Amino acid sequence: MRPDTGDKVTTIAVKKAAPLAERLATKQQEISVTEFFEKNKHILGFDSRSKSLLMGVKEAVDNALDACEEAGILPDISVKVVRHPDDEYSVTIEDNGPGIVHRMMGNVFGRLLYGSRFHAIRQSRGQQGIGISATVMYGYITTGKPAHIISKVDGIDEVAWQMDIIINTKINRPDIVNESPFVWKGKEHGTSIEYTIKGRYVTGKQSIFEYLKNTAIVNPHSKITFTDPDGKIFIFERATDVMPQRPKEIKPHPAGMEIGDILKLSQLTEQKTVKLFLINDFSRMTSRIADEIIKKSDLKSSIKPKNLTHEDCKKIVKSIETVKIIAPPTDCLSPIGGTLIKKGLMHVLEGLRPDYYAPPITRSPKSVNGNPFVVEVGIVYGGEIPSDGQVSILRFANRVPLLFQPGACAITKAIADVDWRKYGFEQRGGKGIPFGPAIFLVHIASAKVPFTSEGKEAVANIPEIVNEIELALKLCARSLKTHINKEEKRKKTHVKFEIVHEILPEFAKKSAKFLKRPIPELGGTISKIMNVVWIEPTVVTSKKNNRSVSLTIYNYTTKDRSICLHAQLPKEAVDLTLFSSEFFTDMNDEGKTTWTINNIPASKSVTVEFKLSGRMSDMFSADDVYVSGIDPSMVVGADQLPGDWGIKGMDIVELDTKDIEDDIDVEAIEETEDLEDE
Amino acid sequence: MRPDTGDKVTTIAVKKAAPLAERLATKQQEISVTEFFEKNKHILGFDSRSKSLLMGVKEAVDNALDACEEAGILPDISVKVVRHPDDEYSVTIEDNGPGIVHRMMGNVFGRLLYGSRFHAIRQSRGQQGIGISATVMYGYITTGKPAHIISKVDGIDEVAWQMDIIINTKINRPDIVNESPFVWKGKEHGTSIEYTIKGRYVTGKQSIFEYLKNTAIVNPHSKITFTDPDGKIFIFERATDVMPQRPKEIKPHPAGMEIGDILKLSQLTEQKTVKLFLINDFSRMTSRIADEIIKKSDLKSSIKPKNLTHEDCKKIVKSIETVKIIAPPTDCLSPIGGTLIKKGLMHVLEGLRPDYYAPPITRSPKSVNGNPFVVEVGIVYGGEIPSDGQVSILRFANRVPLLFQPGACAITKAIADVDWRKYGFEQRGGKGIPFGPAIFLVHIASAKVPFTSEGKEAVANIPEIVNEIELALKLCARSLKTHINKEEKRKKTHVKFEIVHEILPEFAKKSAKFLKRPIPELGGTISKIMNVVWIEPTVVTSKKNNRSVSLTIYNYTTKDRSICLHAQLPKEAVDLTLFSSEFFTDMNDEGKTTWTINNIPASKSVTVEFKLSGRMSDMFSADDVYVSGIDPSMVVGADQLPGDWGIKGMDIVELDTKDIEDDIDVEAIEETEDLEDE
Repeated sequence: MRPDTGDKVTTIAVKKAAPLAERLATKQQEISVTEFFEKNKHILGFDSRSKSLLMGVKEAVDNALDACEEAGILPDISVKVVRHPDDEYSVTIEDNGPGIVHRMMGNVFGRLLYGSRFHAIRQSRGQQGIGISATVMYGYITTGKPAHIISKVDGIDEVAWQMDIIINTKINRPDIVNESPFVWKGKEHGTSIEYTIKGRYVTGKQSIFEYLKNTAIVNPHSKITFTDPDGKIFIFERATDVMPQRPKEIKPHPAGMEIGDILKLSQLTEQKTVKLFLINDFSRMTSRIADEIIKKSDLKSSIKPKNLTHEDCKKIVKSIETVKIIAPPTDCLSPIGGTLIKKGLMHVLEGLRPDYYAPPITRSPKSVNGNPFVVEVGIVYGGEIPSDGQVSILRFANRVPLLFQPGACAITKAIADVDWRKYGFEQRGGKGIPFGPAIFLVHIASAKVPFTSEGKEAVANIPEIVNEIELALKLCARSLKTHINKEEKRKKTHVKFEIVHEILPEFAKKSAKFLKRPIPELGGTISKIMNVVWIEPTVVTSKKNNRSVSLTIYNYTTKDRSICLHAQLPKEAVDLTLFSSEFFTDMNDEGKTTWTINNIPASKSVTVEFKLSGRMSDMFSADDVYVSGIDPSMVVGADQLPGDWGIKGMDIVELDTKDIEDDIDVEAIEETEDLEDE
Repeated sequence: MRPDTGDKVTTIAVKKAAPLAERLATKQQEISVTEFFEKNKHILGFDSRSKSLLMGVKEAVDNALDACEEAGILPDISVKVVRHPDDEYSVTIEDNGPGIVHRMMGNVFGRLLYGSRFHAIRQSRGQQGIGISATVMYGYITTGKPAHIISKVDGIDEVAWQMDIIINTKINRPDIVNESPFVWKGKEHGTSIEYTIKGRYVTGKQSIFEYLKNTAIVNPHSKITFTDPDGKIFIFERATDVMPQRPKEIKPHPAGMEIGDILKLSQLTEQKTVKLFLINDFSRMTSRIADEIIKKSDLKSSIKPKNLTHEDCKKIVKSIETVKIIAPPTDCLSPIGGTLIKKGLMHVLEGLRPDYYAPPITRSPKSVNGNPFVVEVGIVYGGEIPSDGQVSILRFANRVPLLFQPGACAITKAIADVDWRKYGFEQRGGKGIPFGPAIFLVHIASAKVPFTSEGKEAVANIPEIVNEIELALKLCARSLKTHINKEEKRKKTHVKFEIVHEILPEFAKKSAKFLKRPIPELGGTISKIMNVVWIEPTVVTSKKNNRSVSLTIYNYTTKDRSICLHAQLPKEAVDLTLFSSEFFTDMNDEGKTTWTINNIPASKSVTVEFKLSGRMSDMFSADDVYVSGIDPSMVVGADQLPGDWGIKGMDIVELDTKDIEDDIDVEAIEETEDLEDE
């Protein structure tokens, strides 16, 4: 559609008045980024009074946690909300972070798009340099009151500084008033922000309390104190003094780079040749890979990066796609991990006793546009979880709970895209949020979480991310299905057990009476007929979270039998009864426990007993009882010890074991294996 | 939490090195708005290859329509997508708009947050000055190729200008190359943009074709030509030469103003006193209202606006809440209107024959934060619309179809919040998207649509907007319920009719045979027993959208009867058969038609017949048949002519008429009435 340039006019025509277009032109003007966000405050999450009140807390707490972690300080954060007349609230968030140097305080709190983490490829909560300044701005818009900021950096002679800040929206710069240094008694370092905002204080699922509670769950190294508008104080105590692994900053990964990205980086680099540029400015680039890319791109490795044309960059991008490059390093990420996911789910249950915790899945890292990310999923199922509604969904991104915009979120989309009917859920047409007694927890850790808006409420539907979540969900659901299958099998087994134990003897009694003969001794007969070793787990739960577990082994064979029993136990929940059992053999660090029972006589039974107590006692599942040291085809009620348990069973008999039918498509599994090979 | 200032240090302490905080400080930097959007391209809608290809088209077409409408030009827009190797596409959008003056071309296409409509309170598609520049940026990032822009403004001697533009993301300014004037043959004025972008061409619900089709439906004054990558040309012809009412720019409405808004406006105003400021800088402000506000705020009306303190502004905001101010003017909006909504729904049906079009609802305007908005809803139901899935939802905002992010949208939320079980839909727990044979169309027209992100894909969940949508949906669903009720009533009536017409005569015949007596003449007997006038509509539909309608009036009384029949007919669908009927009396502009039938003898019947043809024939519903001139309690099969038809029936007998049970809560109805009083 380029016009015929034969008619090209070589001298610039004298302009005549073109009234309409001119009139339109006079209206054209620059829009300041502050004016933009002032007018679009819903994009920042300030779209209702109740949400506005929460958003500021969220932004300040996120920043406090980020700063503490960067400085290696165990976070101690207090949040206080005070109610004033006319729906005004003043909110104070104080941390013990490293503090902000005096000259930077204005910009950090009073200027949008100003921050330290925007260019870093590393997991962090804040990134854009918008959130806290937007809070200051929104507080001012709704109440006309400035924010009051205090900060002190470490150093014996350092004073603290305090100042009032408002944002000059026309130029996006802070207006600072009442600035003064002072001695912040008893405070070595830290920052406090107090702002006043029009809001509505709510309780429930989208409340400040809920946000802080969920934050504390996935950040157990933090202490968070919350004072609500009624003066009630809630303390979320620190659960561990171990800081999470500090995410390291990495270079961009070549996978997913766009032509423009390469072009831009090539202009900014200090490297002298394209080869050095590739090796030094990207992660996971070796000399060999760089050579391969350069060769495939028809370039000389000595060419200067600044001289790369867009055609060259296009070839590089194309070559990158065809070259095998190792996945991005994972040390820029800080996943929650299986234990915390389980704890998170347990907290949410608030005393409801579920039937089963599916082992949480933490996927291997993947990369989108050079940014690595990891998906984690946990599912808790059944028991006392209400079964008449949709499943509950807990969403987290970079250890921050997401309380709003579920409908916009990649996590919700991924859940709705899975056909949950395969896994025992009710779901009309195999699409949409399924119905059933379950809670799903999904966490995305990424060097750059692609939020749908600046309010950071939902993860954008990037296909690669949605796929990873789906995969993780399916893997987790697969264990759940195994559980459900085992549960059904166990129920059936139990019915048979009842037949053997109750109905057959009854039948024998009646027959004997009818025939006027003595009641026969059935043990030997049953053993002859059945020829199985029967494992019957019984779990009795008392109200105080105490569970008595007994595992009875019935030897319905005609010979003496020896057997090893194995079970996965929650270490925190066991007591001395476990170790005092004569059959107890060993328990490893993960709670994998072994009992050895030698020479159970034919037609006799032996029972292994132990007690579990405390909240973690829920973690035990009768699914996780296995046997070794015996031909598994002879055993009813427990499977053979799986190879991946990493502990040696006694004298394992190798046989073809049929696993449950595979419900994940082949491609997905291959891909999983690919990742796990790395 | 303000510290005790007794310890205030009055001299500034000499700073010592504070290594960590200092190290963090050095990383603090400004983030350019372009870098921000470059990194967050999903916020602009560029989050997948297929969507990216559509986004650019959407932004350019939106701009073209806005520009044409501002200039009063009937839009003629062509869109061409050409496929290149390596998933690259070049996209050209050309319009016949007023053109862009030469000196502005760079900024309009090569600078984010630059535009003419940001501060205007008036319905328009584009507003932020982001979309088209983002397209140019994203095209460059993915292919390294600049956008090629041509524009010519009106004027005989004017030349057109062409240039290549890329965005310098570091400074957010256009880099212009290959700029030259030329003669654009045969073009008086207009703009063309050609850009190359990495993409994926898809068909289906989220395709360019679908977007253009839906755009054409609600913008029938436009001609849109689309050339797809295979060279196939689709033309959406102009359906009307009448331009939609041009939305007028208005001043901000006081309702919903924040303290900061008033404070800011008071600093910018040219008015000398606060009274003049209130009267002249806001819409719907009279001298009386201004006085009332000033009095309630304890201010002097002569105070200068610049001297207003934040406390003053707070009082003003509070006073505004208590004063009755008329709703914002509606001429800044351009709703679609009932006819276009019906047409839109019809297009979507693609030949499927529905059972019923609920009369579309266009609500009275409301205001959020000084921005007026209007909600419109249409529902089509039943017939051949598939009944096994969720209802289909068509979302529009300011005449732009919304194809993405349904889950994030206020429209979806409002639909999910209504208990549709009341209206005959299947909906688990009375929440969520209902299942049933229906298509919902919702349009929000606003001076400022609060989109959830800059990609303008979903409307934010602002409570006032969600409420309005819910209300409109309920009002529309109410007609639907009336229809469903009538339908059920008619089915029951028909069963009775069959008894009278078929079973009774059969019974008489058998009895006569059995008794060996002649078959009795039943007419008189039935009339005596029944004493009703029976209206029986029959609609026969042929394949070619032709419908033969007959309305038979059975006089089952013992006297002669005269009656008026009334029906709502689609004017476009009637033919001469209607007017040639001896009973036809009148048809008004809205298609409301009257027949007069005098002196139907006792026990006799009369039939009124007419034909409907064309697509609009679907609009006729047997629901819309009414009677007058007769005691309605004597009539079976049609209701009395409602008073709101605005036409006079013959000799209407006034009786208590029980309307269908009210399914809308009282508050909602009162509010509706409030609005309609204005």
